[in-house]
Amino acid sequence: MQSMFCNRCLRHRTCVSQVRVMYSSQSQKVQLMSRLRTQATNTSNVRTQLLSLRMGCQQRRTNPIFLRFSSSSSSSSVSSKVRLTAEMYPGLKRGPYAVLSDADATFFEDLLPGRVITCPSELLGHNTDWMNICRGSSQIMLKPKTTDEVSKILAYCNERRLAVVPQGGNTGLVGGSVPVFDEVILSTALMNNIISLDKNSGVLVCQAGCILETLDNYVAEKDLIMPLDLGAKGSCHIGGNVATNAGGIRLLKYGSLHGSVLGVEAVLADGRVIDCLSSLRKDNTGYDMKQLFIGAEGTLGMITAVSILCPQRPKSVNVAFLGCSSFNQVLETLKKTKTLLGEVLSAYEFLDHECMHLVTKYLGLTNPVGDYPFYVLIETSGSNESHDQEKLNHLLDVVMTDGSVENGTVAMDTTQMQSLWAVRERIAEALQHDGAVYKYDISLPMDAYYKIVEDMRERMKGVAIRVVGYGHVGDGNLHLNVTAPELSIKVLDLIEPYLFEVTEKNRGSISAEHGLGFKKKNFIGYSKKPEVVSLMKDLKKIFDPNGILNPYKTITV
Amino acid sequence: MQSMFCNRCLRHRTCVSQVRVMYSSQSQKVQLMSRLRTQATNTSNVRTQLLSLRMGCQQRRTNPIFLRFSSSSSSSSVSSKVRLTAEMYPGLKRGPYAVLSDADATFFEDLLPGRVITCPSELLGHNTDWMNICRGSSQIMLKPKTTDEVSKILAYCNERRLAVVPQGGNTGLVGGSVPVFDEVILSTALMNNIISLDKNSGVLVCQAGCILETLDNYVAEKDLIMPLDLGAKGSCHIGGNVATNAGGIRLLKYGSLHGSVLGVEAVLADGRVIDCLSSLRKDNTGYDMKQLFIGAEGTLGMITAVSILCPQRPKSVNVAFLGCSSFNQVLETLKKTKTLLGEVLSAYEFLDHECMHLVTKYLGLTNPVGDYPFYVLIETSGSNESHDQEKLNHLLDVVMTDGSVENGTVAMDTTQMQSLWAVRERIAEALQHDGAVYKYDISLPMDAYYKIVEDMRERMKGVAIRVVGYGHVGDGNLHLNVTAPELSIKVLDLIEPYLFEVTEKNRGSISAEHGLGFKKKNFIGYSKKPEVVSLMKDLKKIFDPNGILNPYKTITV
Repeated sequence: MQSMFCNRCLRHRTCVSQVRVMYSSQSQKVQLMSRLRTQATNTSNVRTQLLSLRMGCQQRRTNPIFLRFSSSSSSSSVSSKVRLTAEMYPGLKRGPYAVLSDADATFFEDLLPGRVITCPSELLGHNTDWMNICRGSSQIMLKPKTTDEVSKILAYCNERRLAVVPQGGNTGLVGGSVPVFDEVILSTALMNNIISLDKNSGVLVCQAGCILETLDNYVAEKDLIMPLDLGAKGSCHIGGNVATNAGGIRLLKYGSLHGSVLGVEAVLADGRVIDCLSSLRKDNTGYDMKQLFIGAEGTLGMITAVSILCPQRPKSVNVAFLGCSSFNQVLETLKKTKTLLGEVLSAYEFLDHECMHLVTKYLGLTNPVGDYPFYVLIETSGSNESHDQEKLNHLLDVVMTDGSVENGTVAMDTTQMQSLWAVRERIAEALQHDGAVYKYDISLPMDAYYKIVEDMRERMKGVAIRVVGYGHVGDGNLHLNVTAPELSIKVLDLIEPYLFEVTEKNRGSISAEHGLGFKKKNFIGYSKKPEVVSLMKDLKKIFDPNGILNPYKTITV
Repeated sequence: MQSMFCNRCLRHRTCVSQVRVMYSSQSQKVQLMSRLRTQATNTSNVRTQLLSLRMGCQQRRTNPIFLRFSSSSSSSSVSSKVRLTAEMYPGLKRGPYAVLSDADATFFEDLLPGRVITCPSELLGHNTDWMNICRGSSQIMLKPKTTDEVSKILAYCNERRLAVVPQGGNTGLVGGSVPVFDEVILSTALMNNIISLDKNSGVLVCQAGCILETLDNYVAEKDLIMPLDLGAKGSCHIGGNVATNAGGIRLLKYGSLHGSVLGVEAVLADGRVIDCLSSLRKDNTGYDMKQLFIGAEGTLGMITAVSILCPQRPKSVNVAFLGCSSFNQVLETLKKTKTLLGEVLSAYEFLDHECMHLVTKYLGLTNPVGDYPFYVLIETSGSNESHDQEKLNHLLDVVMTDGSVENGTVAMDTTQMQSLWAVRERIAEALQHDGAVYKYDISLPMDAYYKIVEDMRERMKGVAIRVVGYGHVGDGNLHLNVTAPELSIKVLDLIEPYLFEVTEKNRGSISAEHGLGFKKKNFIGYSKKPEVVSLMKDLKKIFDPNGILNPYKTITV
């Protein structure tokens, strides 16, 4: 793990793409855009990255190492070239927190001998987010091993008014897991014990710092599967997954973490341990307090352990790729897919013709089914290979006979499966070759889902190169992307706040998967009503009255 | 609906069974037991009912009408003979709430013309709980149709300090949905509009007063199924289901409501409408506030609308009944069942030989597989009949060949299916013929699950007639019942608090399905740590600072 953090410094990215989040007037906007242009120099590739990064790229279902190092990495200790967040947002004020003193460092060293990091070069990766967009200036990282240590640390920090940022694998996409200023970094890296696995019930109990992939390998030995899967699974910690309510590609089949997480142990700001580490599927004895920590991004408490229900591991996986002539056909096929695949359906993804154009043009991928306005990728996961194949074949017979689908193909082996998945998964990569990319990750009800893409396409006519739509249509999550010749206020003004307003009007979500963190915090009003935000603030005040837990994130009290 | 409430008055039950919940000393206990004996007269059937009712009978998967009228009903307006809760618990003090005035009634009548109930006979059923154990003395029931009306009612009640009890179908088993004193009854009976059903996503949005069965029939037309099923489905309201986090027999397949409820609209005590009525599967924009209302039993807010994800309706259902020679075999078979049935497994229930003895002896049911120490009922629900049958047959081949199961049978038609289910479902009924029944509904981890039954059997030797165990082993929910010749302090003292202590020691739940409500509120400490209870109290103070919402239930602030 440690070497990966150091290696990350090799990656170069200017970190100006989030600047717009905080501007408050048109003049500020223009100034910042001017700065953006200057910083972007003339390299179109850098320009392209700017807005791609602004809304946070999608995590992809590939080796996380690939994700970490997919961009060019030519210089050493490049993380230090990521501008400090505090400099990027000059209007952002540091909260009324204490500054770390020698006495504090001594206290921590006494409590965690040899597990207090103060070396600047070692801290660099932990101060910098996974996207190389946000960088804090923490002077210290603590690596507790036990809940008791976390409790003592937080009680001390609360007493001293030292701000704290909980950090797991630091793979978040909205700047939620790194300091904004000089917060103490509280790492779960050494809290990586698996506590128990009940083979009968499938309930795994483990510390928060266990790496998702490690857990998945562990439960696989008992023919179980973790109910979530992410591109970052080789680095991300289960505590971070739960704290961010991570979605991923298994959500369609296994549901959200609010259903599959059975228990959480968390430490409040004042050091109180909230032990809701139940491993029971049924427990109706009062408010389900663990739910509040799921998705709170560490602002209500530091998750120290998790209990999670692991389903049976599928024995059979199949992938089909289809061409449709309208989005209605995509929806019609989805309906039939749900009916005929039923319990074995594990993914229903779509992309439009513009996406296919991009991956074939820029990445040389082969269109598996020929030219159609829309494409669908269907995956099954089940317990019986011949049954699953028979179900899939029957579905394909039905949808191709009744005209819901124009053409289709089924992978015959793992290589073909990967090729079909690549068409869907490499869209984000292909987009970066097309121009400046304006990325959005929203949830919308089905009746508004693709309409917004068509709407934006009409709206952006003559300004954008293209507007594309793809994503997890099976669970309502749309990736809407606009490419344009350059980063431009004109383009941005055409997109925002219009897109957020349409999302709001349709009761959609402006952050389907990634959370609010630091970067999307100010957009909360588009997805949450004022009464709800007000109630969130009330909760924050109860759980963390001094506001020391992950300040500047999720919610401003 | 209305006629059912009136008819309930025909049912006679003395309502002394919950008295012990509140006693605080041995002398009080003896006095109360003495009263119990007097009230129980000499009718052993009444005696038998007393403790059966004390912990709340299990809801069964049968017509709710049958449940309502299964006991003898010989006199008219019998609900009025149910003792007032306030009289049963003389130590319980009415909170500092206002008393309903004529001006209040006028205000409500102006707001809800023709929808304010003050007729004592009509109120009787709404003052009395489904078990005929608890009875309040509310003078008024309000039947709003809209969220706005609920908001206006609560704002008024909050201002006036009038206590309120939200009421759905009033089918709860822990006295949570009826007044304890004279609280205003706020009924969802007329909030029964279906707002929308998205056929593509399967998301149903409806008002809180929709009856579960009505909703299930409605979504069935679109080949969907409600993700929960209860014996009371013909009466219970979806708002009540969500407020009590109802479990039921589909939980094993579709998970808890914390996963399948996508949105909740609720009104706080001060009338603020908390609109979290999202119909999105993915939305990571801040704290998931709706989760707090799920299972809060109306103490944090009145649920007015719900958005819920409906899975595809299964096309095929199969039932098998097996005999095992040890509980380890039951667990071994469970493991293999999960592996081989995988995604089509919808129920895994068990009963021990004592249960089988009871249903054959008292109800004349046929033992379908011969005498064994343990029995298992397995149900599959899937999208393809031949696949499901093949999977089930394969499982049976495996477990009978490897000796996990001694004998088994598979239902060939619906009648046989019902016969097999009857063996499991009629245990509670059979128990009542065996003596005084001491009923417990707990969750335990698998390694402690049946051990507690053996433990109690040893402990109760020479005192109990028998100790039986049955229940939803697939989701860790155990129904442990003790029968004895009579209601006795000696028996009770052998069971309690020992059973709660063992449950606590094993991190189990003392209320797996039913909630705390009024009757189990004082046992919360066995399943929730003091820090968690303290946090619950803090939340209650934020959501309902004057404590007007469902007072005397769930949590004491």
